[in-house]
Amino acid sequence: MSTPAFGDWMKGVQSSMEQSLADFLPAESAPPQQLHAAMRYAVLDGGKRVRPLLVFAAGALFAAPAAELARAAGAVEMIHAYSLVHDDMPCMDDDALRRGKPTVHVKYGEATALLVGDALQSQAFLVLAEGDAEPARQLAMLRLLAAASGSIGMCGGQAIDLASVGLALSLDDLEQMHRLKTGALLRASVLLGAWCGKALTEAETAALDAYAAAVGLAFQVVDDILDATADTTVLGKTAGKDAADNKPTYVSILGLEQSRALAEKLRGDAHRAVQPFGDQGLRLRQLADLIVERQS
Amino acid sequence: MSTPAFGDWMKGVQSSMEQSLADFLPAESAPPQQLHAAMRYAVLDGGKRVRPLLVFAAGALFAAPAAELARAAGAVEMIHAYSLVHDDMPCMDDDALRRGKPTVHVKYGEATALLVGDALQSQAFLVLAEGDAEPARQLAMLRLLAAASGSIGMCGGQAIDLASVGLALSLDDLEQMHRLKTGALLRASVLLGAWCGKALTEAETAALDAYAAAVGLAFQVVDDILDATADTTVLGKTAGKDAADNKPTYVSILGLEQSRALAEKLRGDAHRAVQPFGDQGLRLRQLADLIVERQS
Repeated sequence: MSTPAFGDWMKGVQSSMEQSLADFLPAESAPPQQLHAAMRYAVLDGGKRVRPLLVFAAGALFAAPAAELARAAGAVEMIHAYSLVHDDMPCMDDDALRRGKPTVHVKYGEATALLVGDALQSQAFLVLAEGDAEPARQLAMLRLLAAASGSIGMCGGQAIDLASVGLALSLDDLEQMHRLKTGALLRASVLLGAWCGKALTEAETAALDAYAAAVGLAFQVVDDILDATADTTVLGKTAGKDAADNKPTYVSILGLEQSRALAEKLRGDAHRAVQPFGDQGLRLRQLADLIVERQS
Repeated sequence: MSTPAFGDWMKGVQSSMEQSLADFLPAESAPPQQLHAAMRYAVLDGGKRVRPLLVFAAGALFAAPAAELARAAGAVEMIHAYSLVHDDMPCMDDDALRRGKPTVHVKYGEATALLVGDALQSQAFLVLAEGDAEPARQLAMLRLLAAASGSIGMCGGQAIDLASVGLALSLDDLEQMHRLKTGALLRASVLLGAWCGKALTEAETAALDAYAAAVGLAFQVVDDILDATADTTVLGKTAGKDAADNKPTYVSILGLEQSRALAEKLRGDAHRAVQPFGDQGLRLRQLADLIVERQS
């Protein structure tokens, strides 16, 4: 059986993910209907599904069962989606546009947006706790996702981000912020995908950690480059927002050319990190390329 | 060994709970410090710890290990605390006072309050996922807490509450709202405590469900009575708020006397529900009494 082209594999994951997420979310017909409609609006029909792609790419290392991968990917994507809903609220980034559509608080009101985010987080843990992996391994996956989401992960990174507005951050501080804000959940995606296949050795964890660190940082560097260079229509969210908000970015600290060089270096780091997995690491290498080359 | 008096038992649980929560929360010295300080502010030194008391009282049915009870109780209390932080925000109830202290958003700002609630929810699942019960049982506990917290539990009840402002709710609708908004987490407290001891039979689950339903509803009826009759100093939160917000309550629908009679009836229901457990049900019966007789 020949390996499908990357583009086809990616479309396959994205479209099966859409179906899985639709299944993992409460039905719109179930009460409270408006909350469920808003939760589905926040999650479905949008995004590049980078985290689910990482879950599936890492799962390919150890031939993980597709149903377990869909479950882990669904949980991570719901955490990501909830963070976007809260991040867009007026007391945070106050953004009206997300993935080319009105943000949840614009469409449903602030109180509902708050509850949508809260309920999506619970739903993510519910979905993951319903997994069929060996129970001790499933529990380890829950600990990983919870730690990556909370105050020493994503939420912690957002808190540092909040505190950094208007400050002249060093490159190290900026990296630390992003390692938590976006890196923690990207790392969790990679490790969860692999854990869907088997319990990892220390060497495997270290290799995947190195890959995730490089890809996570590359993701953010490219985000900053796109925020500075792309326009709102292509991006599907408000461009130039970081500069307008006076937020430190890779582009503001390093400039555009050095930021591009850094992204290239990180792509190389990511490729090297997964060399020990040989051919099974193909999807992870291709995803590193996608993350560096993306235009939106 | 004679059984300690109820008051002593309660004070013992409350004070050991304070220590457990302090241990389960990230240290204030760990970065991001401000977020961790605000999380601790939201959880520590406050509240009657009704949910932890229910966890420990139900744990007494099956001689559950104290360390596991503390863990389950800590997780439930963090979920409860996060819901209060978000509930108090301007886009929800807009309350400045909680447990006699400024609310989190008043003290730390809205953006931090949003993140505090989000991070406390993650922390609750992290703490519960670190439990030492047999892994399959621990997973079942995580599913229970996640379902009780999310859109078909607490968040769902809050969504119905939001939608009900200014509406003439029937008694059935009001009960359904509270069954989700506060009842789901109270029920989870009772079941989690019992599960810390052993996997439950269907009959045991049914008995505890009946107890939790009665106590959960009694809790809300008494809340409504206190909101209508107590003053802000005693209550530690703004009194008379429901009437001011034009929210339907038991008092607004049934009147004060019938509300008091309903609370008494529910106390009797709760006592009867735990009769099958004999002497081991003492703490659960005493808690039902406390919930009905409380003055704040």
